[in-house]
Amino acid sequence: MEAKHIGPVELREAWWLLAPDDRVEGFRLLEPADAEEFFFDLVADDQAELVLSLRPGARRIWLRLLPPDDAADLVQAADEEQRELLLGLLDEKTRREVSALLAYEEDDAGGLMSARFARVRPDMSVDEAISYLRKQAISTTELETIYYVYVLDAQQQLLGIASFRELFASPGDRLIRDVMRTEDLVTADAEMDQEALAHRFAESDLLAIPVLDAQGRMQGIVTVDDIVDVVEEEATEDIQKYGGMEALDEPYLRIGLVDLLRKRAGWLAVLFVGELFTASALQGFQSQLDSMTVLALFLPLIISSGGNSGSQASTLVIRAMAVGEVHLRDWWRVARRELTSGVLLGAVLGAIGLIRIAVGHFIGLQPHQHLGLFAATISLSLLGVVLFGTLAGSMLPLLLRRIGLDPASASAPLVATMVDVTGIVIYMSVASLILF
Amino acid sequence: MEAKHIGPVELREAWWLLAPDDRVEGFRLLEPADAEEFFFDLVADDQAELVLSLRPGARRIWLRLLPPDDAADLVQAADEEQRELLLGLLDEKTRREVSALLAYEEDDAGGLMSARFARVRPDMSVDEAISYLRKQAISTTELETIYYVYVLDAQQQLLGIASFRELFASPGDRLIRDVMRTEDLVTADAEMDQEALAHRFAESDLLAIPVLDAQGRMQGIVTVDDIVDVVEEEATEDIQKYGGMEALDEPYLRIGLVDLLRKRAGWLAVLFVGELFTASALQGFQSQLDSMTVLALFLPLIISSGGNSGSQASTLVIRAMAVGEVHLRDWWRVARRELTSGVLLGAVLGAIGLIRIAVGHFIGLQPHQHLGLFAATISLSLLGVVLFGTLAGSMLPLLLRRIGLDPASASAPLVATMVDVTGIVIYMSVASLILF
Repeated sequence: MEAKHIGPVELREAWWLLAPDDRVEGFRLLEPADAEEFFFDLVADDQAELVLSLRPGARRIWLRLLPPDDAADLVQAADEEQRELLLGLLDEKTRREVSALLAYEEDDAGGLMSARFARVRPDMSVDEAISYLRKQAISTTELETIYYVYVLDAQQQLLGIASFRELFASPGDRLIRDVMRTEDLVTADAEMDQEALAHRFAESDLLAIPVLDAQGRMQGIVTVDDIVDVVEEEATEDIQKYGGMEALDEPYLRIGLVDLLRKRAGWLAVLFVGELFTASALQGFQSQLDSMTVLALFLPLIISSGGNSGSQASTLVIRAMAVGEVHLRDWWRVARRELTSGVLLGAVLGAIGLIRIAVGHFIGLQPHQHLGLFAATISLSLLGVVLFGTLAGSMLPLLLRRIGLDPASASAPLVATMVDVTGIVIYMSVASLILF
Repeated sequence: MEAKHIGPVELREAWWLLAPDDRVEGFRLLEPADAEEFFFDLVADDQAELVLSLRPGARRIWLRLLPPDDAADLVQAADEEQRELLLGLLDEKTRREVSALLAYEEDDAGGLMSARFARVRPDMSVDEAISYLRKQAISTTELETIYYVYVLDAQQQLLGIASFRELFASPGDRLIRDVMRTEDLVTADAEMDQEALAHRFAESDLLAIPVLDAQGRMQGIVTVDDIVDVVEEEATEDIQKYGGMEALDEPYLRIGLVDLLRKRAGWLAVLFVGELFTASALQGFQSQLDSMTVLALFLPLIISSGGNSGSQASTLVIRAMAVGEVHLRDWWRVARRELTSGVLLGAVLGAIGLIRIAVGHFIGLQPHQHLGLFAATISLSLLGVVLFGTLAGSMLPLLLRRIGLDPASASAPLVATMVDVTGIVIYMSVASLILF
């Protein structure tokens, strides 16, 4: 009775393409050990979909295999009306833990934490603590990590922390209170944002950080392996916002087309409405354009140079803020840097523009009536537009943070749109002054 | 003899602003324990500068405080001619380790690894292994982590791995060979790129991954705390490239102005030269522009809409490739998605454009001679340009990967420049067909 052979690798490859029924079917055909690994590796959305497609008996088994934090993610990923059903499948103790986790935002420290940490009392001896840990280690699902032990008093206040390594290197009869560290403990509030938490991990090089509630009681730990995912996730969100859309929250190939379009069309429409001002701005200079259409030829060149330099500046500042290198109070240093950069970069592009116009004139491609004046118009406009672009691009993210918005919304397209409108005004004003 | 009180926090705040001499002075004024922590927290560049500014005797002390991987980073950060000097300060054993690390690229697995891992023989008992580890744990600088033990044969080939937790939960008289896992071991080549390595950590949720050389001999381990930094660093590089410049490799506020400008001016000039084609493209339609200057009014609007939609598409695909969601073989699925998205997003913008022109006409702001034909020109051009933008933006990163370049170079400005030139041709061709 040899069943069709399908391995976990093939199933994983084909997963996105399969209909829900085929997924369940493929999953059933896996060897038990493969199935378990496969299930653990799925993202919470897929785990939820899969579990809900199984028979009621099987649902309970698979759900109970998960540690509480992953079970909470699965429940969170299910539709509102099915969450109760899923919670009902858990044993009493886990259900309480999962419910507690669900009370926090998914991307808070509280939503990432596990309550299965090693807690000891300050008056235990090192040997007692080690043998207690050894007992826990044998039932491997009981503790998220044995590498730190947390010393709590009767009110669950965190008194100190000892790494397992420190316990291990201490004489067996010393008391925990004499081994534990009590100073400079790195902790997190349950409501701390996951991005801030990731910075705390990056700074402290710890494997786990304890999470405290508002009353200072220890609620759980967040482990570093969850943080690697968080850092990637946060960078993805920033990059997508920076590309001029809402963050997707789901993998690109998986998100439904309607959701994908909604997240893109919104910003695209906003930017479009912004760009409509370019037409109005240009109309204000209609008479100049009418009498000298050659001005229109260089219009895209000039405004896009401003957009490009603005895009560079905003990228630099957004990222430097995200990794904590630049703060609001640094705005003046940033402005000074970008002022210098803008002048010099504008001069470089102005010089290239000058060469282009001279060459175009002398080879007869685009002869100009007033070569000198025209070249001066283009070069000065480039200087002005690039300078404005770098200043606008660098200050906008700081301004957004100042008024409480996400700096990453100062996207390349948004900066480009701002600079397009202003660039037209700069270009046509310079032209009016010099040429008319 | 109370010295001027300066704490590590104040010094860290002021660090970037201080001249080299003042840094050394500030560092000397720290309490010994603070100084040690402060030194460990500095980036390798600053550590190198500081160590080289100290007296020869003090140099040796501080350099020897560092574990070999950090010492290697410090030596790497120093100027070529001072590396020998620094290496000479190390003890024989560490010098050999550091030299081995320096043989690898800084952003390879080999450059990140530490040689101080726990190695055991397969015929040790669990109790022997634990007491061996306990001895090592006491001299805390000897091992990077005790949480995994690596089972090697006499030729340094990796036979298996046991987590400390597994050892701990096993009967003391069992042999390591019966406890260790030998299947599906997660390892890395010494030459593996750090970005790929970060993915391996994210997938495997391990705390450390062993690094093997080309002959399969174990060389060291990379620990997850180094990877959190790597993930941030790689995201920063991608974001900066995506903003249309070279990756800085240094914090924005710290990099020298000359370096900063070099990294920005190069791409800016390339993009500018690309944009020069917009002038040439427009010149091909000079007669249409001359006879109907109202066409120029809508030019920035139309080409920037293409750039914005292209920026969205390239962001999505670049990031999805960076986190391993989209591969080259998915190109057709991506193209199909973006084809649909492009048509629908183009239709949305086309509709807004239509409304704008109708309103402009009827309130007398911009009355058009041939309202219907003009509106059709704008809407159809928007549809075409947005469609081209999404397709170009989504395919360019895949194309770059295909020919061996970094997909993140398909930056928002580059896509915008491509679309500007094509957008002009699309717009003016549609206008020529409909209006002339």
